[in-house]
Amino acid sequence: MLGARCLLRALRSCSSAPCPRHTPSAKLSVRDALGAQNTSGERVKVQGWIRSVRSQKEVLFLHINDGSSLESLQVVADSSFDSKELAFGSSVEVQGQLVKSPSKRQNVELKAEKIEVVGNCDAKDSGFVHIHTPIITSNDCEGAGELFQVEPSSKVKVPEENFFNVPAFLTVSGQLHLEVMSGAFTQVFTFGPTFRAENSQSRRHLAEFYMVEAEISFVESLQDLMQVMERLFKTATMLVLSNCPEDVELCHRFIAPGQKDRLEHMLKNNFLIISYTEAVEILKQASQNFTFTPEWGVDLHTEHEKFLVKHCGNIPVFVVNYPLALKPFYMRDNEDGPQHTVAAVDLLVPGVGELFGGSLREERYHFLEQRLARSGLTEAYQWYLDLRRFGSVPHGGFGMGFERYLQCILGIDNIKDVIPFPRFTHSCLL
Amino acid sequence: MLGARCLLRALRSCSSAPCPRHTPSAKLSVRDALGAQNTSGERVKVQGWIRSVRSQKEVLFLHINDGSSLESLQVVADSSFDSKELAFGSSVEVQGQLVKSPSKRQNVELKAEKIEVVGNCDAKDSGFVHIHTPIITSNDCEGAGELFQVEPSSKVKVPEENFFNVPAFLTVSGQLHLEVMSGAFTQVFTFGPTFRAENSQSRRHLAEFYMVEAEISFVESLQDLMQVMERLFKTATMLVLSNCPEDVELCHRFIAPGQKDRLEHMLKNNFLIISYTEAVEILKQASQNFTFTPEWGVDLHTEHEKFLVKHCGNIPVFVVNYPLALKPFYMRDNEDGPQHTVAAVDLLVPGVGELFGGSLREERYHFLEQRLARSGLTEAYQWYLDLRRFGSVPHGGFGMGFERYLQCILGIDNIKDVIPFPRFTHSCLL
Repeated sequence: MLGARCLLRALRSCSSAPCPRHTPSAKLSVRDALGAQNTSGERVKVQGWIRSVRSQKEVLFLHINDGSSLESLQVVADSSFDSKELAFGSSVEVQGQLVKSPSKRQNVELKAEKIEVVGNCDAKDSGFVHIHTPIITSNDCEGAGELFQVEPSSKVKVPEENFFNVPAFLTVSGQLHLEVMSGAFTQVFTFGPTFRAENSQSRRHLAEFYMVEAEISFVESLQDLMQVMERLFKTATMLVLSNCPEDVELCHRFIAPGQKDRLEHMLKNNFLIISYTEAVEILKQASQNFTFTPEWGVDLHTEHEKFLVKHCGNIPVFVVNYPLALKPFYMRDNEDGPQHTVAAVDLLVPGVGELFGGSLREERYHFLEQRLARSGLTEAYQWYLDLRRFGSVPHGGFGMGFERYLQCILGIDNIKDVIPFPRFTHSCLL
Repeated sequence: MLGARCLLRALRSCSSAPCPRHTPSAKLSVRDALGAQNTSGERVKVQGWIRSVRSQKEVLFLHINDGSSLESLQVVADSSFDSKELAFGSSVEVQGQLVKSPSKRQNVELKAEKIEVVGNCDAKDSGFVHIHTPIITSNDCEGAGELFQVEPSSKVKVPEENFFNVPAFLTVSGQLHLEVMSGAFTQVFTFGPTFRAENSQSRRHLAEFYMVEAEISFVESLQDLMQVMERLFKTATMLVLSNCPEDVELCHRFIAPGQKDRLEHMLKNNFLIISYTEAVEILKQASQNFTFTPEWGVDLHTEHEKFLVKHCGNIPVFVVNYPLALKPFYMRDNEDGPQHTVAAVDLLVPGVGELFGGSLREERYHFLEQRLARSGLTEAYQWYLDLRRFGSVPHGGFGMGFERYLQCILGIDNIKDVIPFPRFTHSCLL
């Protein structure tokens, strides 16, 4: 999360005036630098993000990645270059000589003559606050009805009808609780188990699964949210690739051949954005026969999601602005028409389909009041409505299914293979 | 956890030969060094653990703590002292001159002339593996019966009697799942929510609370376990104190005056150890009238626990070797008698009572088989018994209630005040 946010905040703050001491350097991607044949001191320029910093007495080692390759380029610099700004996540421009590396771990390294920090990444004052949202709740965030109810087992003697006086359920999302907290901490996230009593045997569903959820105050556009989502996906993936290369290699080699290239393709391209309305048009014009006929006002099915990602060249694609009638009461009304939509966004990825879901939240008291009234939820969500009475701010957030994320980056077909103790209908082993 | 374990593993590896270049230095505690009046270059020696390392171009800053004071002593050294061994958690002996600090953040600092690493703390190869144990389970780890049962809410249509085919509950402990994992990863831990359907309105109980639980293979004595527990408590507390001093100060100043001293007292003393049998003797000889009469074979109540801690001078105390009849089937039989005990351990702390509970696990197939048979659990725990058939090892573990830990270090009287969304009988707000 930190990485995502600080990358998002990065500002291009330095001039890009050419280095006066040398002839202009050839600009190379990390991939091209790594593959260079001529390593007899050619002067080059590489731009990218710092993936690791190792500071020794006289030498500073940086690993730079620009998304053109899963592998990073090692930069070797005199320790006089060392500064706080050369931190994980900072974007830099490095000029120097491409030389043969004395180490066996790489063929080529870049001997730095000049390092410019393009965008700072100070993770210290830009943190998301980690909140543990509750597992047992009296809310039903999604309004979906696929809830597990919680009651003391028959062995426990409690005189009242309900242990908690009210019906209590296992959480389907920490969103509403995060919204409470974002009203004080501005940017918050949770990482914890969530539950669906879905009678499904699919390769994408579990009864108990983990979600990363984030909520951000003072966010006014889906664009801002999507930027955080894309950065989160890319930064987390880069971190996994650089911290556990052997584990990833194992999956890519023995379970999902070709996944390495597919992942690289996702990382090096900017994610795409289409509207729900455009998505339906694409599906209608498709030559493929779908089990569920695509139509405006009807939810997208997995078969549709997978088609859309393929249609987009296997680059992850954000679908935005869904029909109001399909979405829960808390999503922000776009006040458009006649096809009435809300500011919702899903991220679809190759192989998996929906990975993230998010939205701007309805922060306007009267809009929310009417939506609740129409759904008959006014009484149950009075406390939530009250959040809009005292210091309400435009805000939004999203959730990412953690096991689906693992499926996506590792190329694992069945979600039950990325969690140690999977729970699904008919199965709760151990 | 890392800190706890690496401190545990620390080996006194260096000689303590006197430094030849200077006259013998006076040995000072950190507390005495901080309070020193004579700062005109007196030569001193300080021993303790490194709490932080800040490496700059020409200077190296260390903060050293030895438990004699909540505050750490700043050590300023030439960057030539810098080495990988000077890492968080390493124990060191520093000789040098005590001088007035130029910074306003402290009065005194130690100008290092010699730094000896007494015990290395290489956190890289000594990690506990973080496991997310499941929330929904078909086990009842404690055998206590105070379980929440989980079923799809009436709105969900599932034809079978049970969604999972078997009755399913909210976890009361991740221990059994951790035991599975410790059979492959040696040292594992989990940090997650656990549940009790306890009809209690006490200031120490929640229906949903967090536990840190650890499980360690190849552990053969309670002594080893207790060392990890004590180090975990002390290292975590030191980290909280050094990373969030303002938050702690807020609680100590406005909610729990005197707590700072009480905490310091806990940190600077070695925790005590008494047996359950000794504990009962102490309680029997006490002049205090207890609501529950202490007797061998009966569980200790909170009033007993609090008395024992006071009796021990408000130093945390481990109580070991509880009656076999009081404890679950998985705890290791001490094969003693006639008062038959198991290798269980609880840590009692001031203000709270029981904070940790742990035990050696019964790793011997035939012992476990008989215990299960006697409890009528053979069928339900066949999978657990099987763990003793294939590569069984002596092992043990413990759990620490996270909210009680916060109560203990912050001096918060009511457990409902250290969790954002407390759940207890009659209450499941939001």
